[in-house]
Amino acid sequence: MDTAFLRSPLARNLVYDEFAVLHPASYRFHPLRYSRCNPTNSTPCETLSVSPSRELKQLADEVRSEISFIMTKCQPCGPGRSVVELTIAIHYVFNAPMDKILWDAGQHFESYFLSGMAVARDINGRKNRIVTVISNWTTMAGQVYEAMGHAGFLDSNMVVILNDSCHSLLPKADGRPKMSVNAFSSAVSKIQSSKGFRRFREAAKGLAKWFGKGMHEFAAKVDEYARGMIGPHGATLFEELGLYYIGPIDGHNIDDLICVLKEVATLDSTGPVLVHVITGTEIDTGGNIRSEITPNDEGPPNSSHDLLKFLETGLSRTYNDCFVEALTAEAENDKRIVVVHGGMGMDRSLRLFQSSFPDRFFDLGIAEQHAVTFSAGLACGGLKPFCIIPSTFLQRAYDQIVEDVDMQKIPVRFAITNAGLVGSEGPTNSGPFDITFMSCLPNMIVMSPSNEDELIDMVATAAMVEDRPICFRYPRGTIVGTSGTLTYGNPLQIGKGEILVEGKEIAFLGYGEVVQRCLIARSLLSNFGIQATVANARFCKPLDIDLIRTLCQQHSFLITVEEGTVGGFGSHVSQFISLDGLLDGRIKWRPIVLPDRYIEHASLAEQLDLAGLTAHHIAATALTLLGRHRDALLLMK
Amino acid sequence: MDTAFLRSPLARNLVYDEFAVLHPASYRFHPLRYSRCNPTNSTPCETLSVSPSRELKQLADEVRSEISFIMTKCQPCGPGRSVVELTIAIHYVFNAPMDKILWDAGQHFESYFLSGMAVARDINGRKNRIVTVISNWTTMAGQVYEAMGHAGFLDSNMVVILNDSCHSLLPKADGRPKMSVNAFSSAVSKIQSSKGFRRFREAAKGLAKWFGKGMHEFAAKVDEYARGMIGPHGATLFEELGLYYIGPIDGHNIDDLICVLKEVATLDSTGPVLVHVITGTEIDTGGNIRSEITPNDEGPPNSSHDLLKFLETGLSRTYNDCFVEALTAEAENDKRIVVVHGGMGMDRSLRLFQSSFPDRFFDLGIAEQHAVTFSAGLACGGLKPFCIIPSTFLQRAYDQIVEDVDMQKIPVRFAITNAGLVGSEGPTNSGPFDITFMSCLPNMIVMSPSNEDELIDMVATAAMVEDRPICFRYPRGTIVGTSGTLTYGNPLQIGKGEILVEGKEIAFLGYGEVVQRCLIARSLLSNFGIQATVANARFCKPLDIDLIRTLCQQHSFLITVEEGTVGGFGSHVSQFISLDGLLDGRIKWRPIVLPDRYIEHASLAEQLDLAGLTAHHIAATALTLLGRHRDALLLMK
Repeated sequence: MDTAFLRSPLARNLVYDEFAVLHPASYRFHPLRYSRCNPTNSTPCETLSVSPSRELKQLADEVRSEISFIMTKCQPCGPGRSVVELTIAIHYVFNAPMDKILWDAGQHFESYFLSGMAVARDINGRKNRIVTVISNWTTMAGQVYEAMGHAGFLDSNMVVILNDSCHSLLPKADGRPKMSVNAFSSAVSKIQSSKGFRRFREAAKGLAKWFGKGMHEFAAKVDEYARGMIGPHGATLFEELGLYYIGPIDGHNIDDLICVLKEVATLDSTGPVLVHVITGTEIDTGGNIRSEITPNDEGPPNSSHDLLKFLETGLSRTYNDCFVEALTAEAENDKRIVVVHGGMGMDRSLRLFQSSFPDRFFDLGIAEQHAVTFSAGLACGGLKPFCIIPSTFLQRAYDQIVEDVDMQKIPVRFAITNAGLVGSEGPTNSGPFDITFMSCLPNMIVMSPSNEDELIDMVATAAMVEDRPICFRYPRGTIVGTSGTLTYGNPLQIGKGEILVEGKEIAFLGYGEVVQRCLIARSLLSNFGIQATVANARFCKPLDIDLIRTLCQQHSFLITVEEGTVGGFGSHVSQFISLDGLLDGRIKWRPIVLPDRYIEHASLAEQLDLAGLTAHHIAATALTLLGRHRDALLLMK
Repeated sequence: MDTAFLRSPLARNLVYDEFAVLHPASYRFHPLRYSRCNPTNSTPCETLSVSPSRELKQLADEVRSEISFIMTKCQPCGPGRSVVELTIAIHYVFNAPMDKILWDAGQHFESYFLSGMAVARDINGRKNRIVTVISNWTTMAGQVYEAMGHAGFLDSNMVVILNDSCHSLLPKADGRPKMSVNAFSSAVSKIQSSKGFRRFREAAKGLAKWFGKGMHEFAAKVDEYARGMIGPHGATLFEELGLYYIGPIDGHNIDDLICVLKEVATLDSTGPVLVHVITGTEIDTGGNIRSEITPNDEGPPNSSHDLLKFLETGLSRTYNDCFVEALTAEAENDKRIVVVHGGMGMDRSLRLFQSSFPDRFFDLGIAEQHAVTFSAGLACGGLKPFCIIPSTFLQRAYDQIVEDVDMQKIPVRFAITNAGLVGSEGPTNSGPFDITFMSCLPNMIVMSPSNEDELIDMVATAAMVEDRPICFRYPRGTIVGTSGTLTYGNPLQIGKGEILVEGKEIAFLGYGEVVQRCLIARSLLSNFGIQATVANARFCKPLDIDLIRTLCQQHSFLITVEEGTVGGFGSHVSQFISLDGLLDGRIKWRPIVLPDRYIEHASLAEQLDLAGLTAHHIAATALTLLGRHRDALLLMK
């Protein structure tokens, strides 16, 4: 097996697949992207002959080297390499693209497509196999129980492989900080490799045979619970949901993997099967166990020194940092403040709060629905919950926000992080919709800061409001750096914006951090002899109607600007100025919003350019509106 | 115990509570509404002395009579009466309002507040007990696993009572049609009363003691799995999630209930406990088992005759009926059409499709997230899924719609039922937000029919579109009855509306069934000498920009009308006419949308009146816009 083989479709696909795990957002649902590779067919894999195991191990090493080489050009990220053996074993046993293989590449769990695809296959009378690889992140989300429960109920043939990267077969693994946040993942974390397991199970089966045919059902139960008793904790949970549990298997032992997967693949009518694979160790190019892999790339700083250093790095200070510092300061004075975090991963800035108030901090991971309702419960119990969820993950809890919080007028404070475009994380993690879907809720106060100081004020504002829910969105990026000295904020007057710079004819009314770009647009326009007004709305709901009336009365053009979709801030402004009669010939209104498409991965600057939301775009819109089309073109050159 | 006692706070609360179960939407989160009632305190319950059991049974009978009496004035609904004993036992043992008691009264699961309230209690250093009664509906939704898993992880004291009304302790219960839709509820449905259960458990505990202290953990496992083996299926699932399972208990045996609840209540540090109570039988006023209670009031018609009769009842034909007939007809010609239903209950009209194509029908109940992703999987497998979900329940699957369907451009057809106001079902079941949160999605086609014929055409349209997702919303109510003869529809041209009646000066552009009210408004206006144009938008996305341009060019006033919140159809129209320059003094635009508040329970007509969305309101808006304020007032008298 030489390097030419590494250029084969199989190897290339593997590398591609690895990248899917490394850079999830670049790579979603893709059952048909795999090339066919099976030893029984005339493909490059044909070369795997007498001793496939040895050659496959060599392939694993080569793929791993290749990935390591490619990764030197990217940011380092461990977990991807841990599934090399698993990926090879799956492709060795199953027959892609005939057999459909779904990887949980993103955080949105493509594996849930599984049961739908299995049913479609059955209805279409096809016989191909459907395999999905789920990560143990997945088991925190409620949807996995819906999906797995349904898979169990359908009793359709499908193979679910649980890629358990949080746990290790190494003895010292237990000493590592656990990322598990609920009882289920905690149960799974108790897994131990049990050699007596299969033997006991066989004995139970023998017992069942001895009981005879009539005892079949009881025997099945004996088998099931025998496994529960001897095998890993968590197994019976899947069994209860109707999946046949096999495992745990060492995810780096390619022989074991192939043996088990072959057995699963050759069974004609198995119903849904769950294969539990442990991939929590990394194997170096020599095939030796090199290190454990940290479960995610947002692990805790190694020491308080690191933490301090991280927080002190002025240049890399983000909106999240400011928010958490302000919230921690606020919580020192107000013992009722508690933090609930929902969503995949956790911004490391939150560790400041977590370490300061461990008993007042709840990381619920991707159980966002529960995070919201849990927050509502905390508020009902007299506490002041700040529920911190990235915009994209807030979508998962929309019904809970509507029914359990807004309709009940329960004072939950939502800090919506990663709002708007998120650069390299791409469309799956971007948050373009939250202004739209939060502002239509009757009782919600909806706001967004134009800079870090205002974010700190909004923390104080949210802590103050006790009679209704409130939310504020802020972007993923680094701070503007306006003052950098504030830690304690002052509560803002609800529904009050401000005029930042007065001009004439044209007024920009920005909502959120885009206000900064409006200010730059103003500078650009001044080169063309235009003095624009820039106002900072602060609130999308309630709107500052006095401010809007003033802007309409003193200008010919009102341009609303937001990093969100249609239906959000601009729509609320237009609704108001229409009903107020201001739109009847008095003012010309133009909304600048995100375009009606998903913006692909790029740097944040490139994404803003693609979205038409740079300062230059904003200025050019004003020039066009004033009929100065040539100047607009000049500006955009 | 005389009738005066029945007027006591306890009895009144019980009756009130019953109503909560009967009419869920009227009654949400209400931990503080209970009056204190405990035998150790000087409350009316003091009268319960020597033989509380006998008196409590008498109270149960009296409450049941009272409810039966009240229910003669309402529509009959069984399940409420089945929790009389459970309610009395809870109030006998626990100490409301100190102890917090949460009932799953609505479909949105107040019980999820549980863990939040328990944590708030612990942080506040209080000692009260927190009890929640969940229904077995709940166990279908993924969120329950998030919530229960978290409860188990927190290990905070709380009592979860599973009110299992789908199952019966009567032997013949198994012959009844099951409403279970997934493996979990199917597992729970296998419950049998097991007398040997407790005895075995005690034996297992004895065994554990014999093993000695060092074997503690193993002993706990023996106990757990011994119960799994002998006790009901499903028990171990809760154990895996970290709750201590007790049950099943006959929900009509008040002595048993009190005994178990007392035991649970007196334990000082139990962690979360799940008490499984079977309430699937109804007990008459004499205390005898009278009948089983059907699990929900939307059970199947008793015979095909009933079904036919039901479908033929012209007067009560609903939009749902028309939709299902059209879809069934379409499915006869197109074998790729499959139906996925999500949401609580199921409109009985769907049984026509279910009985015609049982293999192509999937009712996933309140696992809406999974329903959407399952539909996406079916579409990926080459089928044509129609995913039918009421607007309010679609909120639960918003993230799946965004990430798994729209972003992937997968052709799932969403039939959004119960859109807009829903009359007596009140705010929890109303669907005011869907236009707003669906129309901001880049790839989604968003439409709504103005009458039944158009709904049938939209079924054909949705079946035809294969390159992207599409949705259509329609109301809960009865049809307009425009023709009533169509079953097969014709695909509509995507993004094309129509002018229904030409007039001048004022144009109504309606989206959805409000078009009918626009037509009535036109008649009302003609009495004032005004000839308004009425146009039917059909599509919110893509907008019919030619139609909108024509309306703007030929009229002075454009009134958009929809039964939805701000951010929806009107906002999309204003966005377009602003960018197109049409709003710059050419046309005066007014949006009529739902008001920015939740509309309380009332008849649909009353709700429309409260919302300002009747034909009279629409006409009055036009009169006001024309400066004829006096006529507007005259009209609204």
